[in-house]
Amino acid sequence: MTRKIVVVGGGAAGMGAAGGAKAVDPDSEVVVYTGFDDAAYSPCGIPYVHGKEIDSFERLFLASKQAYVDAGIDVHYNANVTSVDVTRKVVHVADLGEVSWDTLVLATGFNYADPGVPGGDLKGLYYVKNIREAIEWDKVLDTVKSAVVVEASPLGVEMVTALAHRGIETHLVAPSPWPMSEIADPDIMAPVEDSWRELGVTAHFNTTLKAFVGADGHVSAVQTSDGEIKADLAVICTHKEPNNALGVAAGLKVGSTGGLVVDERMATSVSGVFAAGDCTEVPNGLTGVPLQGLTGSHAYAQGKTAGSTAAGGSRTYSAVYVPWGTAAGKWIIGGASFGETTATALGIPYVVGTAQGISRARYYPGVKPVKVKLLAAPGSLRLLGAQMVGGEGIKERADFLAVAVKFGLTLRDLARMENVYSPAIGALNEPIVVAAQNGIDALQKS
Amino acid sequence: MTRKIVVVGGGAAGMGAAGGAKAVDPDSEVVVYTGFDDAAYSPCGIPYVHGKEIDSFERLFLASKQAYVDAGIDVHYNANVTSVDVTRKVVHVADLGEVSWDTLVLATGFNYADPGVPGGDLKGLYYVKNIREAIEWDKVLDTVKSAVVVEASPLGVEMVTALAHRGIETHLVAPSPWPMSEIADPDIMAPVEDSWRELGVTAHFNTTLKAFVGADGHVSAVQTSDGEIKADLAVICTHKEPNNALGVAAGLKVGSTGGLVVDERMATSVSGVFAAGDCTEVPNGLTGVPLQGLTGSHAYAQGKTAGSTAAGGSRTYSAVYVPWGTAAGKWIIGGASFGETTATALGIPYVVGTAQGISRARYYPGVKPVKVKLLAAPGSLRLLGAQMVGGEGIKERADFLAVAVKFGLTLRDLARMENVYSPAIGALNEPIVVAAQNGIDALQKS
Repeated sequence: MTRKIVVVGGGAAGMGAAGGAKAVDPDSEVVVYTGFDDAAYSPCGIPYVHGKEIDSFERLFLASKQAYVDAGIDVHYNANVTSVDVTRKVVHVADLGEVSWDTLVLATGFNYADPGVPGGDLKGLYYVKNIREAIEWDKVLDTVKSAVVVEASPLGVEMVTALAHRGIETHLVAPSPWPMSEIADPDIMAPVEDSWRELGVTAHFNTTLKAFVGADGHVSAVQTSDGEIKADLAVICTHKEPNNALGVAAGLKVGSTGGLVVDERMATSVSGVFAAGDCTEVPNGLTGVPLQGLTGSHAYAQGKTAGSTAAGGSRTYSAVYVPWGTAAGKWIIGGASFGETTATALGIPYVVGTAQGISRARYYPGVKPVKVKLLAAPGSLRLLGAQMVGGEGIKERADFLAVAVKFGLTLRDLARMENVYSPAIGALNEPIVVAAQNGIDALQKS
Repeated sequence: MTRKIVVVGGGAAGMGAAGGAKAVDPDSEVVVYTGFDDAAYSPCGIPYVHGKEIDSFERLFLASKQAYVDAGIDVHYNANVTSVDVTRKVVHVADLGEVSWDTLVLATGFNYADPGVPGGDLKGLYYVKNIREAIEWDKVLDTVKSAVVVEASPLGVEMVTALAHRGIETHLVAPSPWPMSEIADPDIMAPVEDSWRELGVTAHFNTTLKAFVGADGHVSAVQTSDGEIKADLAVICTHKEPNNALGVAAGLKVGSTGGLVVDERMATSVSGVFAAGDCTEVPNGLTGVPLQGLTGSHAYAQGKTAGSTAAGGSRTYSAVYVPWGTAAGKWIIGGASFGETTATALGIPYVVGTAQGISRARYYPGVKPVKVKLLAAPGSLRLLGAQMVGGEGIKERADFLAVAVKFGLTLRDLARMENVYSPAIGALNEPIVVAAQNGIDALQKS
């Protein structure tokens, strides 16, 4: 009998699941329900179109709808799943009625946390998510003189940079003491803040949002603990909460972050039901602490696993060591696992090695600074995490250092690693090597 | 009593040794003898000044002579060491006489292999090495219409690219079937050859140099097995042979490559005598096969170890996994350990996984292709080597993959690694991950 796999959600996790299922069982019937008009586009690219780095939203569409038809994946657009019945193995789809499944993948994503202040129903509050809405908001940006970005999440950092590039007078209002404070250390973000100042951004840290203030039903200012800020637009970049209402109503187990609990097969607590992406939580490989709201590549890889196992495959998804990175102001920031702030908050002891290096020979055109900070366990010197800020090569180093954390490499291992030296592409001294050696040297002196 | 450490050679290995010695024993007397006018410059940058990527030779000088004085390192320039007596522990320096030492570091570098054809005494034959000579040759380049580069070594590849960028009609004459055939596979070099053609380069592979032909004592053409090629200049980029005459005469043991044999302390076969850089050979970490003529960063790291141990320290130097990379034509090539050509030559069985990926989101400005080929041991799928060609991020991936080979990571490990996805800096699918997965998939289908 043909296996019928229903996927709820058309984002990176959902479409990864659909493809993963078809790869394992090409004869299976794979049906995707998404509440949006489109599936195959890159939401991560939206801030860069707003910032004019990318010239058109058209470029963010990655595949045609026909490509899914050709792949034998039956995608239903504007199709809202309103309930899941795990006993009868059906979902209810608005306007379509009941749809049965043999296995189910929930990839319902996230919602931005409600700012929880008066004025949330005013016009001019922009939640960055759907590409069709983004196309409309982009036209609005042409009319905006001043804007407030609410919270310094990764998206907040990208939107501050984008609006400033766009020439809009941009304010950031954040309760945190520095941008991306849950991920990045203050020394890593300091150059980003400097470059924002050069772009004319005003950042209000340690500042609480009190209300959106309106005129004629449209936002005209925000009230904060630091006073009132005029704004024609507010971009809400609060943290991503798991959109798990369907799963919770169906009785699926939820973890400490609010994400659905899954095992390494991405199976939920209910047999035959799998989940992936921002609606789930997965353990940090070092600490076991559950993490939720990771990146699009995590969602996609989790989706592939969930779809594969939903189709009878044996793929597994490992605990995460979270390489991360993004453009921010005029710099690129990134890292792996955690930094000093998180280590301190978790009570994890660490030693540090830091180096301010360069990306190419110092005389070669295009050479950029690369700062690397490594955290290691006292004694064993096993790598715990890395934080970086620089001009190029941050993503590739972050990927590497996440693997280095996972496989238990030490500062000694990194201090002795070989590196390419060729003037156009790499400096004599690799910053990772120097940071590791500096960490060792500092211990010997102390 | 003060320890006296004599270093012979002022290149990366020699100056690394001097610094390494002072770091371990700041009170030691460290004396460096170099046959050249300068010590602290980057010879690796010379091709890029010739190619006009770098605007002045001045930029290649990395430290002032005063910097060595300040560091307590006594550098003697234009000082040729003519013999070493390991029994009496002295070196003889031309015009200076005998100099005694407690420990000695030989960092005498390499010589280009003699082309061994008639006409080697003609003017217009350029051996790229010394910066002062390079400054003079650069003036000559302004008068050169056509040039021949002899052999497709890494330097040959860089010089072909440089001369073509300079607008000189450039021919490459190489006995090898493709460029850098001892290091890089033909599929990796094919895009480089294509880009050379775009630059007007004529490459003659499988072609033997027969003679340099002169007019009035100056080269005017080269004779080859493929016919005669007019040339106002010939750049000799033959392979690097260890300059080990001093060591050999002193009775030091020499290995199969002709390099001085050293242990992991960079100690030679004679007590108290250490060696580093291109005059030595070190084992490949996977095969144990001795390698000679590695990169400047290898020489520098070996020098630091040799100087450190010569000063009584305990530093060691590991077997090498050789990350490599350089700009070539309009591309960047690189890798780690070895490729298919070397594996085949050594009789090492392997499986392959290849991916043609991209460096950023495909819609993001500046996105470049990144091709990754991974070699792994059949059965265990342990990584044996990597080869890459692309537009950016090659150096950082090469560094990582050399570590991955060293620490025994498998294609399965790489297929499951996490990667940063952020449009401006990395694609959803990391090419290393896709190459690893493709290698696994190909095995399952076969």
